[in-house]
Amino acid sequence: MSRQKNELETVTLLGNHVDLSFNYNPDILQYFVNKHQENDYWVKFNCPEFTSLCPMTGQPDFATIYISYIPDIKMVESKSLKLYLLSFRNNGDFHEDVVNIIMKDLIKLLDPRYIEVCGKFLPRGGISIDPYCNYGKSEKWEKFAAQRLLYHDIQLEHVDNR
Amino acid sequence: MSRQKNELETVTLLGNHVDLSFNYNPDILQYFVNKHQENDYWVKFNCPEFTSLCPMTGQPDFATIYISYIPDIKMVESKSLKLYLLSFRNNGDFHEDVVNIIMKDLIKLLDPRYIEVCGKFLPRGGISIDPYCNYGKSEKWEKFAAQRLLYHDIQLEHVDNR
Amino acid sequence: MSRQKNELETVTLLGNHVDLSFNYNPDILQYFVNKHQENDYWVKFNCPEFTSLCPMTGQPDFATIYISYIPDIKMVESKSLKLYLLSFRNNGDFHEDVVNIIMKDLIKLLDPRYIEVCGKFLPRGGISIDPYCNYGKSEKWEKFAAQRLLYHDIQLEHVDNR
Amino acid sequence: MSRQKNELETVTLLGNHVDLSFNYNPDILQYFVNKHQENDYWVKFNCPEFTSLCPMTGQPDFATIYISYIPDIKMVESKSLKLYLLSFRNNGDFHEDVVNIIMKDLIKLLDPRYIEVCGKFLPRGGISIDPYCNYGKSEKWEKFAAQRLLYHDIQLEHVDNR
Amino acid sequence: MSRQKNELETVTLLGNHVDLSFNYNPDILQYFVNKHQENDYWVKFNCPEFTSLCPMTGQPDFATIYISYIPDIKMVESKSLKLYLLSFRNNGDFHEDVVNIIMKDLIKLLDPRYIEVCGKFLPRGGISIDPYCNYGKSEKWEKFAAQRLLYHDIQLEHVDNR
Amino acid sequence: MSRQKNELETVTLLGNHVDLSFNYNPDILQYFVNKHQENDYWVKFNCPEFTSLCPMTGQPDFATIYISYIPDIKMVESKSLKLYLLSFRNNGDFHEDVVNIIMKDLIKLLDPRYIEVCGKFLPRGGISIDPYCNYGKSEKWEKFAAQRLLYHDIQLEHVDNR
Amino acid sequence: MSRQKNELETVTLLGNHVDLSFNYNPDILQYFVNKHQENDYWVKFNCPEFTSLCPMTGQPDFATIYISYIPDIKMVESKSLKLYLLSFRNNGDFHEDVVNIIMKDLIKLLDPRYIEVCGKFLPRGGISIDPYCNYGKSEKWEKFAAQRLLYHDIQLEHVDNR
Amino acid sequence: MSRQKNELETVTLLGNHVDLSFNYNPDILQYFVNKHQENDYWVKFNCPEFTSLCPMTGQPDFATIYISYIPDIKMVESKSLKLYLLSFRNNGDFHEDVVNIIMKDLIKLLDPRYIEVCGKFLPRGGISIDPYCNYGKSEKWEKFAAQRLLYHDIQLEHVDNR
Amino acid sequence: MSRQKNELETVTLLGNHVDLSFNYNPDILQYFVNKHQENDYWVKFNCPEFTSLCPMTGQPDFATIYISYIPDIKMVESKSLKLYLLSFRNNGDFHEDVVNIIMKDLIKLLDPRYIEVCGKFLPRGGISIDPYCNYGKSEKWEKFAAQRLLYHDIQLEHVDNR
Amino acid sequence: MSRQKNELETVTLLGNHVDLSFNYNPDILQYFVNKHQENDYWVKFNCPEFTSLCPMTGQPDFATIYISYIPDIKMVESKSLKLYLLSFRNNGDFHEDVVNIIMKDLIKLLDPRYIEVCGKFLPRGGISIDPYCNYGKSEKWEKFAAQRLLYHDIQLEHVDNR
Ligand SMILES: [Ca+2]
Ligand SMILES: [Ca+2]
Ligand SMILES: [Ca+2]
Ligand SMILES: [Ca+2]
Ligand SMILES: [Ca+2]
Ligand SMILES: [Ca+2]
Ligand SMILES: [Ca+2]
Ligand SMILES: [Ca+2]
Ligand SMILES: [Ca+2]
Ligand SMILES: [Ca+2]
Ligand SMILES: [Ca+2]
Ligand SMILES: [Ca+2]
Ligand SMILES: [Ca+2]
Ligand SMILES: [Ca+2]
Ligand SMILES: [Ca+2]
Ligand SMILES: [Ca+2]
Repeated sequence: MSRQKNELETVTLLGNHVDLSFNYNPDILQYFVNKHQENDYWVKFNCPEFTSLCPMTGQPDFATIYISYIPDIKMVESKSLKLYLLSFRNNGDFHEDVVNIIMKDLIKLLDPRYIEVCGKFLPRGGISIDPYCNYGKSEKWEKFAAQRLLYHDIQLEHVDNR
Repeated sequence: MSRQKNELETVTLLGNHVDLSFNYNPDILQYFVNKHQENDYWVKFNCPEFTSLCPMTGQPDFATIYISYIPDIKMVESKSLKLYLLSFRNNGDFHEDVVNIIMKDLIKLLDPRYIEVCGKFLPRGGISIDPYCNYGKSEKWEKFAAQRLLYHDIQLEHVDNR
Repeated sequence: MSRQKNELETVTLLGNHVDLSFNYNPDILQYFVNKHQENDYWVKFNCPEFTSLCPMTGQPDFATIYISYIPDIKMVESKSLKLYLLSFRNNGDFHEDVVNIIMKDLIKLLDPRYIEVCGKFLPRGGISIDPYCNYGKSEKWEKFAAQRLLYHDIQLEHVDNR
Repeated sequence: MSRQKNELETVTLLGNHVDLSFNYNPDILQYFVNKHQENDYWVKFNCPEFTSLCPMTGQPDFATIYISYIPDIKMVESKSLKLYLLSFRNNGDFHEDVVNIIMKDLIKLLDPRYIEVCGKFLPRGGISIDPYCNYGKSEKWEKFAAQRLLYHDIQLEHVDNR
Repeated sequence: MSRQKNELETVTLLGNHVDLSFNYNPDILQYFVNKHQENDYWVKFNCPEFTSLCPMTGQPDFATIYISYIPDIKMVESKSLKLYLLSFRNNGDFHEDVVNIIMKDLIKLLDPRYIEVCGKFLPRGGISIDPYCNYGKSEKWEKFAAQRLLYHDIQLEHVDNR
Repeated sequence: MSRQKNELETVTLLGNHVDLSFNYNPDILQYFVNKHQENDYWVKFNCPEFTSLCPMTGQPDFATIYISYIPDIKMVESKSLKLYLLSFRNNGDFHEDVVNIIMKDLIKLLDPRYIEVCGKFLPRGGISIDPYCNYGKSEKWEKFAAQRLLYHDIQLEHVDNR
Repeated sequence: MSRQKNELETVTLLGNHVDLSFNYNPDILQYFVNKHQENDYWVKFNCPEFTSLCPMTGQPDFATIYISYIPDIKMVESKSLKLYLLSFRNNGDFHEDVVNIIMKDLIKLLDPRYIEVCGKFLPRGGISIDPYCNYGKSEKWEKFAAQRLLYHDIQLEHVDNR
Repeated sequence: MSRQKNELETVTLLGNHVDLSFNYNPDILQYFVNKHQENDYWVKFNCPEFTSLCPMTGQPDFATIYISYIPDIKMVESKSLKLYLLSFRNNGDFHEDVVNIIMKDLIKLLDPRYIEVCGKFLPRGGISIDPYCNYGKSEKWEKFAAQRLLYHDIQLEHVDNR
Repeated sequence: MSRQKNELETVTLLGNHVDLSFNYNPDILQYFVNKHQENDYWVKFNCPEFTSLCPMTGQPDFATIYISYIPDIKMVESKSLKLYLLSFRNNGDFHEDVVNIIMKDLIKLLDPRYIEVCGKFLPRGGISIDPYCNYGKSEKWEKFAAQRLLYHDIQLEHVDNR
Repeated sequence: MSRQKNELETVTLLGNHVDLSFNYNPDILQYFVNKHQENDYWVKFNCPEFTSLCPMTGQPDFATIYISYIPDIKMVESKSLKLYLLSFRNNGDFHEDVVNIIMKDLIKLLDPRYIEVCGKFLPRGGISIDPYCNYGKSEKWEKFAAQRLLYHDIQLEHVDNR
């Protein structure tokens, strides 16, 4: 029941050496085909190694990015996702923009049933920012997105900067 | 896709030296424009460095303030938010009043779709107080606010003063 | 925007010396007036210093008491709440009765829109008891209470007696 | 407002010496009368000292048992509950059966409005089992039970055997 | 009330020596009969000892697998589940495929009312993947599945790779 | 190898009903004989249910008391220790005095080779106090005490009043 | 470099069915030969499934037992250790005696260079007891034992009975 | 054995109203007499409510201050310590200076056998600073101080700014 | 100051595709040259993905392996270490043997000044085993090893199998 | 007692805008003068925002860097330290080299009595590396360094990559 060679043709980065780019590059994202399309299910990526630059001061920002989606036909390949995320390394954007940009690029690549992206950024000036955006395709998943927005972080995560 | 200069005209504090005020001053708050207005999304600020004075005894109080909102057209700039929060430093108010005041000032600045403010104050006399208020604009977001009020802290956060 | 003197007339204990009573005394509870009555919002008290006696054995019991309410016109003053809670010190009641008694006394004092009281008692005979009661005024808040009862502790807090 | 002698007549074990039985014995369970029947409220027992035997291998099993219920007229007395739980000590049942048996015995004793029982068993062969069952009396509480079943452990408790 | 011999006839692995297979083998799964079919209840398996191979690189992957289901007539026997899970040891599949395969095999064995499978895989290249799938039999449990999918991980589990 | 009846003659409180005293009473302490006197070994008591009164304000204080000792001929019986600790309930002493008094009473009862007592008190005015005292009999154990004093809490326990 | 058949001749319990005894039985302990005798090294057993009875009241006690030793020629086989520990199940001893008995039985079996045994028992009457004993063979390891006794639990483990 | 009135003559702040000063004021510190001078023992203060200003930027800093000392004849009274610490509120000093200043003031007040002061400051620019100083009187305690300096934080406290 | 090409000649695995072996193979280990030989310093590897087989039952075991060493001239390259550790995947050894074997292979490769290896294995039959061995070259480091053996795990790590 | 202007002349970065360099640049480090040179005391920097590149693959690495030192005459200014650490952003070095380089640069700047640097790097290929180096000036502090090396991480920090 394992994945066959022909099921992996769209995956060219995994297991191979790749030249890295540290400038924003959504074209590096790759997909493979969902073998369980009859099922609505979650895929979540935990990415604690995100860093970008502040657009005003040029100083590095650090975050954990959480990406969760319900695939339709296409699924994002994890090594290409990693390369995409590190392409932000020398890029400047507000925290609030970063999660929206990531979500929009993945929607373009995957056309998923549902997707959400959250960032937990390390503090600046004693304050940290955690932006969260989501999206659902068509009426069914729009309602799904509205419900998840409604109950996001309702159990207020504790933060004390230590 | 980064923020352009002209998109940051309303932001004059970030990256510059600013004289601090330790007396309540809502006028210091600044905004920038939301580039993703077609999307309902969350922005959360974790602020563990809040301190004010008790209106009865004059003794300092300490809290972590959590501010979460869904922006409409305007978004609060984080350095101005920091300066605003430290302007409470020499101000006297009950814990329950503090979160309401912060929320009302941010509503006035941002006219957000939704906002909530929670404080977790350190104990006095063996008891700590955690006030929470929220607000939704127009019928859709009023219902949203009612639901979040309903399920707030339903998983009772454990506290033991150590 | 700070609290004025005349807004604090009902508060006579805070900042003053008070003779303590260790026998159940609901009369010590005091209130002040809610300045944000147009808003439904939470106030939560975390009280890890509660002790009373077992009605059967006379042995001391220890608990953290959590009190959360949505104020209407009156709000409980925290020092009087502290004095009220320590008036249980030499009193004997089952754990299940304690939270109901506290809730009923606060309803009588405050006539709140909604209130809930939970106790997490330390173990006796290898078992600990966590009672929880709640109340909503009129139909709107009765439904609110029913929903919170329904989802209380649904994420089963882990306990291992260490 | 403390419990009176005559309110405790059904409680004969608490505060007295009792001969222990280590063979399954539901008859030892005792109740007392609920003084707050006008209110729907929770009572939760955390019991980290449960041990029984595997019906196939005879080897001891260890668990924390969580029992939560909404009383009607009768409430289970905690010392009798403790004695009941330790009567499983030399008894053999599958984990999945244990929680159902406990729940059924308590329903028979208490005829509660609602009850749920969960066990978190220590691992065998690298796998641990956490069974959970619940019950609601009549239509109102049946719906209540269905909702709690629906959202049980939805925030997937993290387990790593260390 | 303990399980009788004749109630355990389908269980042949527990308590006996078994030759292990490290190649994917769903035939090893065994069931026993549910004695509480009148009740909808949860059984959850926590399995922190899952390892398989990456289909592209052949490198081992490590995960904790969580399996939760509501039994109908048949229940999976835990030792056979353990043997089934370790049959993945030398098998190659994407993380997203693994949870779907496990779920489908258990549906075939048990025909459960409801089932969900989640994997939390250890990081590769700084990113970890947590796939989650679920299934409900007939309309009632399909709606149940849809609700649990909707609220899965809504309190965003914190991950920082340490 | 279990304890025999005659080895337990000095133990009269355990398993029997005892009238409680809430006024400081060191006479209630009882011992039994150490059966392993050829060995130097530790006995540690964790006591999270300690409460006394402030000598200046009369307000209740709360602490966890930790008592560790190396027995010589006599060992303190745990139920008598519990009764002794709750005899502080209506007594007034500074935190720093409490641990010294407990230690001195136990030295008088047990004449131990070594003993140490630590209290972790809940905060007053935002500050908590953790006193620690120790004692060693004769030169060997005096040096032992000096070393433990030297390295006590060298890994600075983290405290944040939540 | 794997263990050979002839190196495992003293191991007859592992992998075989064994009739359990719930009465104290040190004879069940088995050893195998240390293949690294030129090296002083640690072996630690963490045993969170220990239960015995109170010698006074007959009530079950629960503990995690920690056994650490530096082997000489013989090493304790882990399944026999498990069977030995569960032979305490129906036995009555004080907590302080239990750890000494376990240590002495293992010294008799193994004649180890060094050994230590610690128990962390669940609370009774609000107090938990953590006894610890150790032993070193001949002068070198006696000094070793003295040093470990000296620094045992010097970073005072936090306990709060929840 | 409680403290007598005449033993508390040097304590004038505790239980009385005090006008606060937010400018550095070591004169507010008060002592009482040590009743256990024959014993070397620890007193530790955990102070999570410290805030001061940065000498360069004027921005508020936040820290938890830990003060541990071994008293000689005098002991610092805790309310006066609290007032002293909050007198730093409007004062500007480097983190490294703050702990040295506090230590020197307490040495002047108490002439203690030994003292140490540690601060854990919240991060600025992604970096947090934890200064630690100590002092011992005369040769015996100087050596004591040298040893504690040597082993301070040797188990490197984990920090990740979340 | 970065590593030059010629400093990396002995490193042939990192960055290249490698065929994996799941049978014990110490020859795959590679080293590079220490550029800071004038300094004694630590390198620690945390390896939570170790799995091998039980020599008696053939069942998989899981562990986190900790390797810490002070290099002399040679340093182990981390990718080769990873490949070495996964070569245990189909190998059978007792837990106690595994850490000794790993240590001896690394001594042979590196001839380090000092090395220690610890394994924390997941529980079998309710008991987990944590073996630890160490080694020092020549007299200076032999004494170093003896001291670290003496104080290993002296703060008894808490384990509860959840 | 606050720092005076003339005491801060060597500090030119703090509070001012600075152009960032992302290439290794030790020249940016600045110092100020130690006002407490008569005292040996610790300064510790926690730096969770360190990122550099792998010298073989060019992929980003992430670490928390811990720097602790005992100052002599000069102290490192924290903003310059931050700028120095982020100058590694586009630099390639092995983890083991990074901590040695940082330590040597700080020795050159500060000529401290003692210094240590530790890195905790995020995992690659399932393994994480934690290097640690230290240094002491002259004989007294060389011995100090040897002792801290000896006892470093002796309480083996638990790591499981989640
Ligand atoms: Ca904290
Ligand atoms: Ca934190
Ligand atoms: Ca606690
Ligand atoms: Ca625990
Ligand atoms: Ca605890
Ligand atoms: Ca765990
Ligand atoms: Ca655990
Ligand atoms: Ca983590
Ligand atoms: Ca805390
Ligand atoms: Ca806490
Ligand atoms: Ca616990
Ligand atoms: Ca963390
Ligand atoms: Ca943290
Ligand atoms: Ca636990
Ligand atoms: Ca873990
Ligand atoms: Ca972890």
